[in-house]
Amino acid sequence: MERIIVNQYKKPKLNNPVLIGGLPGIGNVGKIAAEYLIEKLKMEKLADVFSQYLPPQVFIDDNSVVKLVRNSLYYKKFPKKNDLLVLVGDFQGTTQEGQYEMSYFILELAKTFNVSLVYTLGGYSTGKIVETPRVLGAVTNSELLQNLLDSGVVFPKGEPGGGIVGSAGVMLGLGKELFDFKGACLMGETSGYFADPKGAKEVVKVLKNLLGLEVDISDLEERSRQIEQITERMQEDVQAKIQQKDDLGYFG
Amino acid sequence: MERIIVNQYKKPKLNNPVLIGGLPGIGNVGKIAAEYLIEKLKMEKLADVFSQYLPPQVFIDDNSVVKLVRNSLYYKKFPKKNDLLVLVGDFQGTTQEGQYEMSYFILELAKTFNVSLVYTLGGYSTGKIVETPRVLGAVTNSELLQNLLDSGVVFPKGEPGGGIVGSAGVMLGLGKELFDFKGACLMGETSGYFADPKGAKEVVKVLKNLLGLEVDISDLEERSRQIEQITERMQEDVQAKIQQKDDLGYFG
Amino acid sequence: MERIIVNQYKKPKLNNPVLIGGLPGIGNVGKIAAEYLIEKLKMEKLADVFSQYLPPQVFIDDNSVVKLVRNSLYYKKFPKKNDLLVLVGDFQGTTQEGQYEMSYFILELAKTFNVSLVYTLGGYSTGKIVETPRVLGAVTNSELLQNLLDSGVVFPKGEPGGGIVGSAGVMLGLGKELFDFKGACLMGETSGYFADPKGAKEVVKVLKNLLGLEVDISDLEERSRQIEQITERMQEDVQAKIQQKDDLGYFG
Amino acid sequence: MERIIVNQYKKPKLNNPVLIGGLPGIGNVGKIAAEYLIEKLKMEKLADVFSQYLPPQVFIDDNSVVKLVRNSLYYKKFPKKNDLLVLVGDFQGTTQEGQYEMSYFILELAKTFNVSLVYTLGGYSTGKIVETPRVLGAVTNSELLQNLLDSGVVFPKGEPGGGIVGSAGVMLGLGKELFDFKGACLMGETSGYFADPKGAKEVVKVLKNLLGLEVDISDLEERSRQIEQITERMQEDVQAKIQQKDDLGYFG
Repeated sequence: MERIIVNQYKKPKLNNPVLIGGLPGIGNVGKIAAEYLIEKLKMEKLADVFSQYLPPQVFIDDNSVVKLVRNSLYYKKFPKKNDLLVLVGDFQGTTQEGQYEMSYFILELAKTFNVSLVYTLGGYSTGKIVETPRVLGAVTNSELLQNLLDSGVVFPKGEPGGGIVGSAGVMLGLGKELFDFKGACLMGETSGYFADPKGAKEVVKVLKNLLGLEVDISDLEERSRQIEQITERMQEDVQAKIQQKDDLGYFG
Repeated sequence: MERIIVNQYKKPKLNNPVLIGGLPGIGNVGKIAAEYLIEKLKMEKLADVFSQYLPPQVFIDDNSVVKLVRNSLYYKKFPKKNDLLVLVGDFQGTTQEGQYEMSYFILELAKTFNVSLVYTLGGYSTGKIVETPRVLGAVTNSELLQNLLDSGVVFPKGEPGGGIVGSAGVMLGLGKELFDFKGACLMGETSGYFADPKGAKEVVKVLKNLLGLEVDISDLEERSRQIEQITERMQEDVQAKIQQKDDLGYFG
Repeated sequence: MERIIVNQYKKPKLNNPVLIGGLPGIGNVGKIAAEYLIEKLKMEKLADVFSQYLPPQVFIDDNSVVKLVRNSLYYKKFPKKNDLLVLVGDFQGTTQEGQYEMSYFILELAKTFNVSLVYTLGGYSTGKIVETPRVLGAVTNSELLQNLLDSGVVFPKGEPGGGIVGSAGVMLGLGKELFDFKGACLMGETSGYFADPKGAKEVVKVLKNLLGLEVDISDLEERSRQIEQITERMQEDVQAKIQQKDDLGYFG
Repeated sequence: MERIIVNQYKKPKLNNPVLIGGLPGIGNVGKIAAEYLIEKLKMEKLADVFSQYLPPQVFIDDNSVVKLVRNSLYYKKFPKKNDLLVLVGDFQGTTQEGQYEMSYFILELAKTFNVSLVYTLGGYSTGKIVETPRVLGAVTNSELLQNLLDSGVVFPKGEPGGGIVGSAGVMLGLGKELFDFKGACLMGETSGYFADPKGAKEVVKVLKNLLGLEVDISDLEERSRQIEQITERMQEDVQAKIQQKDDLGYFG
């Protein structure tokens, strides 16, 4: 079999579409943000991508129907601005080769729709609960910096220290070097301990500004509040247990 | 060398054959069931499949003759109903790539015989001894559900939670997405601790119903009884030791 | 680069040559035996095989000259009997794919010299020092059994239990299934704890009988005696220490 | 995508250039030495090499601009002697296959510039701090030995015992066997515990002699002194702590 196989369902004419990459990763920030856009913008599925670079696995839905793991592209046409392409998926390529091949394949497909600008979404792990997550950025070309700064992205020097590993990095890197694409990686801060809608919310807010999208983010706000309540309760529990231990200690 | 090489021994004309996949897996349920069909239906070997996706190994039979590890296809023609193709083998593909390539290869070969319906067999691990194993199912298309329910398959929501990993899943997934095949996975419950004829027996019973096969299952029943006796004796031993320990405890 | 690259130095016309495979393995029995034949029969190098299936490594000889790791084929013409091809090397293919590809490549090359009979050499690990190692066999076709029995090979039922893993097995398996070669694996017993000339000596004796070769085995006998002395001394040391401990025990 | 992709920026006509390989490795000796040459000789970039044999990663520079990991070739023309090609990079190929493929690719590219002599640079781990590191050598052909000895390289018998693993070895090995290149590996001694300019300085000194280069090594000397001071201070700290412990011991 071909190592990567695409089932393309639509052949829309797109107007300078922006490609947004939102595969699973740290805190699933990128995936949550991208799937939120697809849902709220009622985007249409363009293609499914199957590959031996993904796990050999099917999921089973509530109707007992199997679904082979995949990456998928969705699109949306806008009358007066750049159209949109969004990449989501069940997994990133699971090997080094798979990371490169999958990213290259998506970029090649995107090129057929005249994409020249790519935003990859990801999480930036802080290792602790963050009150108001920032969105960190990295760019392919420095002329993109101002626009991102204006949209609320921050660029702290030396962060992330180890660069960007995985799809969010490789798509930018290959895009820049081999496709002459411009773009940026937008990383929402997250503890990294669970799927994190709070970081995703901040990423979506940046994208709204950047692309002039009209997206109601109240659902993400609601999900963030729920997560906050859960984590607060967990922290109280931990606190209580520590207190209890201290109390016992006094009697000990 | 080609990554997968087939030695095809026969070129039968088959009438809408159903493909049954029974490679080794959890409790070897699928393999035991498939090999039982081949034996009882006196099926003929159609082809051997060799591959670098299988371990680099030969087995040695009782006559000191080597046998390179392989997957094999058997067939059986029936006068008044769908013919049958059964896949068995020593191993599943040992890598992610191997899983996809081997499954794709078999599906492609099956297509040359006009297969359009696939049942993959497997085990569903319960982690404990099961009195009367159920056969869980998952389908490629919901219109297959009723027929399977009528044949004794159950579809508990949310099971298996992690989907289906390996050949039994990938053959269905690739079959559905790239070959337009329909099909189902039939998973016999098993403790998963040993090769389990009990789960296999239930899977064979479902297949008899589904395909209208005449297969005497008394051998599988006999082997199940033997396994039951062994496990009962083991449980009694364990029980006795626990009792002994308790008794000693009283004296301690 | 090609995954396997051959530098062929000679193009001899060979008369129904027998291929002998002696790559490193358990106790290096096969490698020692094959290298001994090359030395004693003054065989000529036919080809070097380089490959990315071998470690990325050069050795350095006593003159500080590097030598890329490789497999090599040697040949010898005999006036009145089958000519000989012997395969030796620094490593076996290091991956599953490498095992298949390297074996297939050698078989293909051997076929160009009209090879149709293959003996692969190996060790059979007993886990303890063996006084007089047997040579165990496994064959591609049962009509070869008698000839091997006459040459001193034994065929105990159920040994080796797990079959034969690696080059010695795959060359036979692929040879039989895809090249229509006949052949056998000859496994000299060895403790498996060190490079073992004793097992190799027995394998060479079998080959002498099988192929009617005139090979002086006194060097292997000498090296075996040396190894025996070393292991005896080690055993005495161990014995002495155990005794000492016991003695101390009496005083303790 | 192609497994290795080159972006070649220049097409200079080079006069019998010598290729120097300085990828990361033990103590990063080779990389430090090669990068020093590029800086001090003001070499120009010839090409970037991207590959799925390198980690799927981008680095981020101080301007928040991403840089896909790569290997790079630099060149320098000299009026009256051999021109120079220097290979540096972020990583060596990360797999066995990658090691061979990357080395082969660079050699092939080098051949288009009429390279026939290759020096690969590396570190030789001593496991302890070395006062005056030696530069050990290994050659493709013994006629190169005298010239290297004259330039200060030493060839102690049996060192390095395990040969040379990785790019520095494979480039020589493949170069010799498949490209008819001559060359040597130059290994600067290093503790191997940190990036080590001291070993690199000695390697650069050898290269100056060998190639008649005019390179000011005072910066490497300065960096070596800094490293020495740091390691001395660390050793004093360790010594002090041992003393302290002993002192406490006396009071204990």
